[in-house]
Amino acid sequence: MSQPCEIGQRLDAIRQQLTVENIDAFIIPRADEYLGEYVPERNERLQWATGFTGSAGMAIVMKQTAAIFTDGRYTVQVRQQVNGELFQYLSLTDDPQIQWLMDTLPKGSKVGVDSRLHTYAWYQQAQSQLQKAGISLVNVNQNPIDVHWQSRPALPTSPFRLFDHQGAGKNSIEKRQLIGDIIKSQGADMALIAALDSFCWLLNIRGNDVPRLPVILGNALLSVDGTMTLFTDTAKLPQGFAEHVGDGVKVKPETELAAELTKLSGINLLADPNSANAFCQLTAKQAGANLIASLDPVALPKAQKNSAELEGMYASHIRDGAAVSRFLAWLDAQVEQGVMHDEAQLADKLESFRLTDPLYQEPSFDTISATGANAAMCHYNHNNAGPSMMTPDSIYLVDSGAQYLDGTTDVTRTIAIGNVTDEQRKMVTLVLKGHIALDQARFPRGTTGQQLDAFARQYLWQHGFDYDHGTGHGVGHFLSVHEGPQRIAKNANNVALLPGMVLSNEPGYYREDGFGIRIENLVAVRPCQALAGAERETFEFDALTLIPMDTRLIDKNLLTESEVNWLNQYHEKVCSSLSPLLSGDDLAWLNKVTQAI
Amino acid sequence: MSQPCEIGQRLDAIRQQLTVENIDAFIIPRADEYLGEYVPERNERLQWATGFTGSAGMAIVMKQTAAIFTDGRYTVQVRQQVNGELFQYLSLTDDPQIQWLMDTLPKGSKVGVDSRLHTYAWYQQAQSQLQKAGISLVNVNQNPIDVHWQSRPALPTSPFRLFDHQGAGKNSIEKRQLIGDIIKSQGADMALIAALDSFCWLLNIRGNDVPRLPVILGNALLSVDGTMTLFTDTAKLPQGFAEHVGDGVKVKPETELAAELTKLSGINLLADPNSANAFCQLTAKQAGANLIASLDPVALPKAQKNSAELEGMYASHIRDGAAVSRFLAWLDAQVEQGVMHDEAQLADKLESFRLTDPLYQEPSFDTISATGANAAMCHYNHNNAGPSMMTPDSIYLVDSGAQYLDGTTDVTRTIAIGNVTDEQRKMVTLVLKGHIALDQARFPRGTTGQQLDAFARQYLWQHGFDYDHGTGHGVGHFLSVHEGPQRIAKNANNVALLPGMVLSNEPGYYREDGFGIRIENLVAVRPCQALAGAERETFEFDALTLIPMDTRLIDKNLLTESEVNWLNQYHEKVCSSLSPLLSGDDLAWLNKVTQAI
Repeated sequence: MSQPCEIGQRLDAIRQQLTVENIDAFIIPRADEYLGEYVPERNERLQWATGFTGSAGMAIVMKQTAAIFTDGRYTVQVRQQVNGELFQYLSLTDDPQIQWLMDTLPKGSKVGVDSRLHTYAWYQQAQSQLQKAGISLVNVNQNPIDVHWQSRPALPTSPFRLFDHQGAGKNSIEKRQLIGDIIKSQGADMALIAALDSFCWLLNIRGNDVPRLPVILGNALLSVDGTMTLFTDTAKLPQGFAEHVGDGVKVKPETELAAELTKLSGINLLADPNSANAFCQLTAKQAGANLIASLDPVALPKAQKNSAELEGMYASHIRDGAAVSRFLAWLDAQVEQGVMHDEAQLADKLESFRLTDPLYQEPSFDTISATGANAAMCHYNHNNAGPSMMTPDSIYLVDSGAQYLDGTTDVTRTIAIGNVTDEQRKMVTLVLKGHIALDQARFPRGTTGQQLDAFARQYLWQHGFDYDHGTGHGVGHFLSVHEGPQRIAKNANNVALLPGMVLSNEPGYYREDGFGIRIENLVAVRPCQALAGAERETFEFDALTLIPMDTRLIDKNLLTESEVNWLNQYHEKVCSSLSPLLSGDDLAWLNKVTQAI
Repeated sequence: MSQPCEIGQRLDAIRQQLTVENIDAFIIPRADEYLGEYVPERNERLQWATGFTGSAGMAIVMKQTAAIFTDGRYTVQVRQQVNGELFQYLSLTDDPQIQWLMDTLPKGSKVGVDSRLHTYAWYQQAQSQLQKAGISLVNVNQNPIDVHWQSRPALPTSPFRLFDHQGAGKNSIEKRQLIGDIIKSQGADMALIAALDSFCWLLNIRGNDVPRLPVILGNALLSVDGTMTLFTDTAKLPQGFAEHVGDGVKVKPETELAAELTKLSGINLLADPNSANAFCQLTAKQAGANLIASLDPVALPKAQKNSAELEGMYASHIRDGAAVSRFLAWLDAQVEQGVMHDEAQLADKLESFRLTDPLYQEPSFDTISATGANAAMCHYNHNNAGPSMMTPDSIYLVDSGAQYLDGTTDVTRTIAIGNVTDEQRKMVTLVLKGHIALDQARFPRGTTGQQLDAFARQYLWQHGFDYDHGTGHGVGHFLSVHEGPQRIAKNANNVALLPGMVLSNEPGYYREDGFGIRIENLVAVRPCQALAGAERETFEFDALTLIPMDTRLIDKNLLTESEVNWLNQYHEKVCSSLSPLLSGDDLAWLNKVTQAI
């Protein structure tokens, strides 16, 4: 935790800049200029300004006062990390920040933002809302934090990695031509490819610039003819890059991006207002470019994995399944011996099994290792509040994933630590029934994840329960573990599920102050093999994740015969797929826990 | 069918007006100025101009050529009714009309519309699209058809009906205050209440101006304080109107509406761009009103029936169930005797049973009485193409409804005429399973019909089938049989289902050139009685429709035990509810067909 007086000095420094920039407030989001889920240390501006280390939040600094907005996950943490005399604690969800500014500031006020740190969609929305209250949104000349941040961490400097074409399935030229055609079909001349995973996918490169996401920092412009300019740290270009990406790729220092955007007068520039930062779009627009607001043209092709990518996903999931199974076997043995561990030790132990895989790179997200009531917080992170110790006769929830060179994994298992109650078994079984219903779904071409979401909730609903998160997110191929544009959720989403898409299937249940349950597999969408030639072209899911589910938590009486068959067949497949990779006690454990119920 | 030469003369007359108005094309929609599903004879402009009598279509008349756009239902009919030498046949769905105009007309062209006959949403969309092709959308001074239509039918003149407060559950003052508050909460001073059923609901009045929809023609302006001006044919005001509606209602001739709208300078006027015509909104805007585009403020309160309205719905459904059951008993007897009827005779016979009810007013929509392969056209109307004769060993589909003084009904039953095939039984059973799954759904507050839609499709999907229509529409209380804003469908819809809403549950299956199946009940949303006090506030459906389903069409082997129980319990309730209203052979029939399977 930063010293309060240190934060106070930083606040003073930011307030000096309010005067310099002639603004009444400055907004500090947690996001950086790349707008991703994870932020390099160098860009943790919210943390520098407030001390808060959570993964989501926003601060607003005004001349006399300041406020920090966080969500339900961080109610405790924010009070531990952020000085309440310097910042008012507010809710990210219940206190809409723009509305709060409108209520707090007088007419005629000026609110400063660093337009690189916000999506264009957010920027436009904020601007039009503030306008109604007579408040203007102002782009600062310099980010006050960047001006005053002493000994700011450097960005990673390791060269980026050329991702072999065999694993990628298509070379960069093919991909760029494909996306060029999409850009053309949208009536554009060029697209701003701002999402890091999008341009890395296009160039078949990977990097280490961002934790959990194997990409490099940068930005790109792609023309309809497939030629591309990558703006990044040119010092990190590896040997053989030019041959790897083929003709038509220029690399320039990222500092030249803004100048390049000012040359786009008259150009129809496609940009995704939800993924590209406001600064780039405002710069291009001001220079006379005609902005075409549209989904990132890479998103949909990237989401539909080709056969090489799928092959890597399947292969990595078998190895990941073996690693996680070894952890689960170890855990059962520890419990049997009465040895308890804390959540951090458990997460580390789990990673230790993955680390033996030569293709393993890093976790695909921060492991959620949650014992007892902690698991009732569905985005719990033991680094924020814990770590707590396992307790006998409880449920342990572990949601973890890995980045392998050939694929990305993400799995949640809920494990009995000793005896569990009938009520807990009932809730696990209701969640499992939903998981099975979604897994077993068949659906015609054109169906969206939104249409399928209720399949996973129906049994909880029948008993008056639900869970407050989506049921499934897309997953990248050795890329982001949270990838669009498809998803399975209640929220509006009009992206049809298509063969090759990988999604999670993760219904859950959270009993406040009690326990938490989630059963998550990754699945791939594929043509329904049993219905080839049916009246409607029909798709189905195929499970990628092959890891035993804890049958000690299941109440067989609540399952139908078909659900019992599903579980037994799944476990048969888990057993036959993982057996060759396990031996000794681990193999014995696998054989035991995958027995038919 | 109008004589071709007559239509030719009318086309000539319309083309004269193209010159007078200095336009290159004129769009003739089927809709009239009230934009409802049904159109009074006086406003059947598309029919006058083309001869086409279908329920959906559009014509575009240009100087040399003309085209008529219809959908799949009317492919045959349009060729029978409309002269192919005068009109090119195009598809309403596959040939988007505005795109077609852009492709057909040169830059600088002017396309005329009568802005009273289009929603403002359509108008804005058309205008912005045409603009891109350099084509302008022009409001004609006079509708060319209105100018030239000789011996045009008059509007109905019967006085409208005061709808008793007891049946309505709330008096007009209460309703107007409630809606006034909603208008205020939207930041508006006043709302244009253009939907006929909306202002009739507000004033507790009903009428006979439109077929199938018991409303009067007109328009209304409602202020935040609940005062209202109704613009309608003042000659139709019944005795006692002023006392009936209470203080604060002025009535003016509809001809004064436009002048009144021009007085709204500076007023924040709420109008629903999807239900109110473009003319009114353009007029108000031009006069300086500030338009607030929002859902008709009456829609949601009207959709949530109060206890008096629900009581009427339940009561009318029992009587309707008895009437339809008598028809089905008669039909079975006819088939047993080998007597065949045509589709029109069957529809008339069905209505004859409803006509014995003193509260019966008229059908709530044109009965779909479809034998054999005709039923595969899901919006079949025997008046368009038939009527065909019943054929032995086939399936008969009848979708019908009634307007009663205390409620509106809508039901579809699929009936075995002699022997049916195993394949037909399988398909009926898959549809029934979907119907049951939706009927049995429980769901937390906030759930939309879109989220539930797949419940009704899942078993068809499992076998590679689907149906191309929504699963459920809202239904009014002695008002429109198709009422929003809620619906159960694949399409985006963010309206949560709330207690008191009435919806249809009508999955189907259509085998082209083969047969058609639909099983439709109306259901009311209510708090889930078995889950009072559950963790989440949970709702469920309760069936209003009480009419036997033909068990001869069901393959019991495809049903789970719980589905068999559902069917048997439903039939038990049908039997106990209708028994008191039936006697003799009808009662014997009811007892037989509602026996447990």
